[in-house]
Amino acid sequence: MTPNVLESIAHTRAAVSAARQAGSRIALVPTMGALHAGHARLIERARQDGQYVVVSIFVNPLQFDRPDDLERYPRTMESDLQMCASLGVDAVFAPVVGEMYPHTPTCTVHVGAVANYLCGQYRPGHFDGVATVVMKLFQIVTPDRAYFGEKDAQQLAVVRHLVRDFNLPVDIVGVKTVRESDGLALSSRNARLDQEERRLAPALYAGLLEAARLIARGETRANVVKTAAAARIRAARPLRLEYLEVVDAQNMQPVERITGRVIVAGALWVGSTRLIDNVRCDKVVLP
Amino acid sequence: MTPNVLESIAHTRAAVSAARQAGSRIALVPTMGALHAGHARLIERARQDGQYVVVSIFVNPLQFDRPDDLERYPRTMESDLQMCASLGVDAVFAPVVGEMYPHTPTCTVHVGAVANYLCGQYRPGHFDGVATVVMKLFQIVTPDRAYFGEKDAQQLAVVRHLVRDFNLPVDIVGVKTVRESDGLALSSRNARLDQEERRLAPALYAGLLEAARLIARGETRANVVKTAAAARIRAARPLRLEYLEVVDAQNMQPVERITGRVIVAGALWVGSTRLIDNVRCDKVVLP
Repeated sequence: MTPNVLESIAHTRAAVSAARQAGSRIALVPTMGALHAGHARLIERARQDGQYVVVSIFVNPLQFDRPDDLERYPRTMESDLQMCASLGVDAVFAPVVGEMYPHTPTCTVHVGAVANYLCGQYRPGHFDGVATVVMKLFQIVTPDRAYFGEKDAQQLAVVRHLVRDFNLPVDIVGVKTVRESDGLALSSRNARLDQEERRLAPALYAGLLEAARLIARGETRANVVKTAAAARIRAARPLRLEYLEVVDAQNMQPVERITGRVIVAGALWVGSTRLIDNVRCDKVVLP
Repeated sequence: MTPNVLESIAHTRAAVSAARQAGSRIALVPTMGALHAGHARLIERARQDGQYVVVSIFVNPLQFDRPDDLERYPRTMESDLQMCASLGVDAVFAPVVGEMYPHTPTCTVHVGAVANYLCGQYRPGHFDGVATVVMKLFQIVTPDRAYFGEKDAQQLAVVRHLVRDFNLPVDIVGVKTVRESDGLALSSRNARLDQEERRLAPALYAGLLEAARLIARGETRANVVKTAAAARIRAARPLRLEYLEVVDAQNMQPVERITGRVIVAGALWVGSTRLIDNVRCDKVVLP
C-alpha cells in the first residue's frame, strides 16, 4: 500500500487525528531520509507494535553545525517512499524547511549536561537542534510511541531526557543498531564513502569491540579501555579519531571507573565523512 | 461545587483524559496562586467558553531570579481553593516542587529575542523558566485553550512565541488587565505593599496613561513618550523606575518610531516590591 505523503502540518494533524478517532495508537519514526536497513528495523518494530505508523522525513537544518554537512547530506526521497510503501507505513510526513521553520525560532530547547560530551562536545548546538525538532515533531504528530536507533546513543539519551523533563506523553523505544556483515553500523552517511574509505570504516566498530572485550574480562579502568580501543582503531590506518569515550549509559557523563552500565562511543573521520558508533557494556561481576 | 484538587501528574492526566472522553474541551488557567480578581477574570472567561476548566497553582522556582522573591511570594492555598470552588473550576492541579522537578531539568526552553528587553533584561533566566514550566503544564494538562493576563504582556508574548515555534496544539487567550479603582493593576505582589506603598503604587499606571494620551494625540517619537511618562511617575515620589519602554506589541523589541501597535511597559520598585504594568496603544492616523 502506498503511504499517505503529507507535506503540511495541518494535513498531518488531520490524518493522525482520524487514525486516533478510529482507535489506532500512533507511532512515529523520525528520520532525515536516505533510509536504509537501520530505519527499516525501526519501522518494522513500530509495525509489529500494531500502530498507525508515521515516518517523518526532514533534514533539519537546526541540527547541522557545518553548512557543508547539511549541503552534502544524502537526499533520496523517491527510494525512501518506496521503502515506506514496502514496509506498510501509513503516512510519511515530509515537510519543506519553510513549513517547519516559517520563522527563525525564538524559542528552542536547550540541552544541558547530557550533551556536554561525545558528539555534543564536537558539534556545538547539534543537540539543541535535535531536541527542538523532536519537540516540534512530537507536537505535530502526537505519537504514543517514537522509535530511535541505538547507533545514535547520545541522541537517544537526549530524547529520553527531553521526554522526562517536559513530561511529554510519549514512550521512547530504542532499537538495536543494524550492521553490515563486517560490523560497520548502517548510516545514511555511509553512502558518501568511496571504495577505499568503505574498506577502512569498520575499524571504529573493531575498536569498540576491543573495549567491550576488555570490560567483559573485568577491566574497570576507563582509561585502559579507551587506550586499547583507540590503539586498535589507529593501528590500521591514519584515520582521525575525534573522540573515544566511556560514559554512563543514562546521563552520558564520562566515567573513570566502570561500576555499572556504560556506553563506549567513538566518532571517526574517514576522509571527509564522520562516522559514529557505540557499544553498551555492563560491569562484569567476576566469580 | 468543590473542584477536584490534584497533586500528582498522573491523577491530573487521568482527570483530563476522562473529561475529554466525555466530550469536553480542556481549558487551562496557569497561576502561581495568591489568586485575585485578575485570576477570577481568567477563570470566568474559560468558564464562559464552556470547557472543563483546570487551574494550576504552582510557584515555579525556575522563573525566580531572586531567592528572596521566591521566599516572599504570597501563598494562600486555602482561599485560592475557595475562589476556585466559587467560580466552578473543575480541577485544580497543585503539585509540590518535587512532582514538577524530580530532577534538576537537563532540557529547558531557551527564549530568544522576545525576552531581550523589558523584564527579560532585568530578570536573567526568568522567561526561560516561564516557558519551561508552561511547556510542562501544557504537556501534563494538554489544554485546547490556555488563558493568560495581559498585565504580564511580555510573558503573554513569550507564550505565543512558544506555541508558534513548537507547533503546540493550544490556543492562547489573552485577557484584559483588571485594575483597582485607582488604576493599580491587580497582582499577587500587591499583598506585600504597606499602606503608604499602596498609596504610591498607582503612579506606574498614571505614567502609562500619560504615554497613551501622547500617542493618541499623534506623538510617534518613542523617546518623547518615554520621557513624559517617566517624568510623571517620578514626579510624585522617589520611586525607582526599573524600566519604561515602548516596544512592538508582537515581538517586544524597542521602537524609536511608533508606526503600528505598541506596548508601553514599565517596572516600578515600590519599597522592596517590584510592580509591572503596561498599556497597548495603536498609532493614531490623524485626520
